[in-house]
Amino acid sequence: MAHIPVPENMPGIRGLMAFRPETALPLNLLAEQLLQAPSTLSKGERELIATYVSRRNHCKYCASTHGAIAKHLLGDAGATIESVLQNLQDAPVSDKMKALLTIAGQVQISGKEVTADSIGTARNHGATDIEIHDTVLIAAAFCMFNRYVDGLGTYAPTDQNIYDMIGKQRAETGYLTPPMPVPTA
Amino acid sequence: MAHIPVPENMPGIRGLMAFRPETALPLNLLAEQLLQAPSTLSKGERELIATYVSRRNHCKYCASTHGAIAKHLLGDAGATIESVLQNLQDAPVSDKMKALLTIAGQVQISGKEVTADSIGTARNHGATDIEIHDTVLIAAAFCMFNRYVDGLGTYAPTDQNIYDMIGKQRAETGYLTPPMPVPTA
Repeated sequence: MAHIPVPENMPGIRGLMAFRPETALPLNLLAEQLLQAPSTLSKGERELIATYVSRRNHCKYCASTHGAIAKHLLGDAGATIESVLQNLQDAPVSDKMKALLTIAGQVQISGKEVTADSIGTARNHGATDIEIHDTVLIAAAFCMFNRYVDGLGTYAPTDQNIYDMIGKQRAETGYLTPPMPVPTA
Repeated sequence: MAHIPVPENMPGIRGLMAFRPETALPLNLLAEQLLQAPSTLSKGERELIATYVSRRNHCKYCASTHGAIAKHLLGDAGATIESVLQNLQDAPVSDKMKALLTIAGQVQISGKEVTADSIGTARNHGATDIEIHDTVLIAAAFCMFNRYVDGLGTYAPTDQNIYDMIGKQRAETGYLTPPMPVPTA
């Protein structure tokens, strides 16, 4: 049970956003800009960064939700994500994405972990300044979202179908549409 | 030197916001809602939470800036903040604030560190559900801001006068006004 009274049929961050719409608005605007707005990183690549950081923070709700969104966007039944999470260096993503995910993993530990070397590697593989900026901010933002969701003790469904429903909706309509109802199981 | 090209006279998050105004907008809206909007926690108390988390993340720019804002709001030349940072249990703040700062310190490590006990203690000392919610989200948000500022290698001034100038402006006008120029020293 969450530490504060959130609606029963709203798992994870959904219940928190219903509880406190005043903070939900800027949080959703941030997610929309980082993950859905036009960018030279595809939506799938950006959701991959969000999933990678969330998994490293052991946030089941966020990792499952953004993993499902990435799966929907990448259209590969989740193979890329699982591969990235299990062994980044051998995963079927570009060298640029490997370098950006490496930076995201450093940010997950601490901003001070990011090195000039890791930035240089990303740049050598073609990453632009904006892609480096956005990668750092996506990773940092998920260090916030993960702590928010787990720090208030919210509920994470165990049924993968629920994440797939949420994933399809968010992948197709972004973060500014109202959440669709999901089963409470 | 920052990892991406930011304006020279803009230290910390200021340069990042000038570099990427698209993400600056939701970030400033979030800071304004969390730290300046009407709340049963005073603005000084909320800036104390922001400073406490930033210091624990060793983010010099954020800890110095929000410490200066808190100092301005609390009007005590920084005595309360220094006391909280050095020994929370003996600091001259209410038992409710001690309990909320304890929760913020747990969030700084991980959302999963927050215990039902620490929530119960805060509630026993009079903390409301919204105060508990906002404390967790302020702490989580500064885990983002700190990583953003340090992960991109931004510059943190060494001159305390610069933080005092920024602190006075933000304390008095909030987070939605343009940054005033500060010396580059």
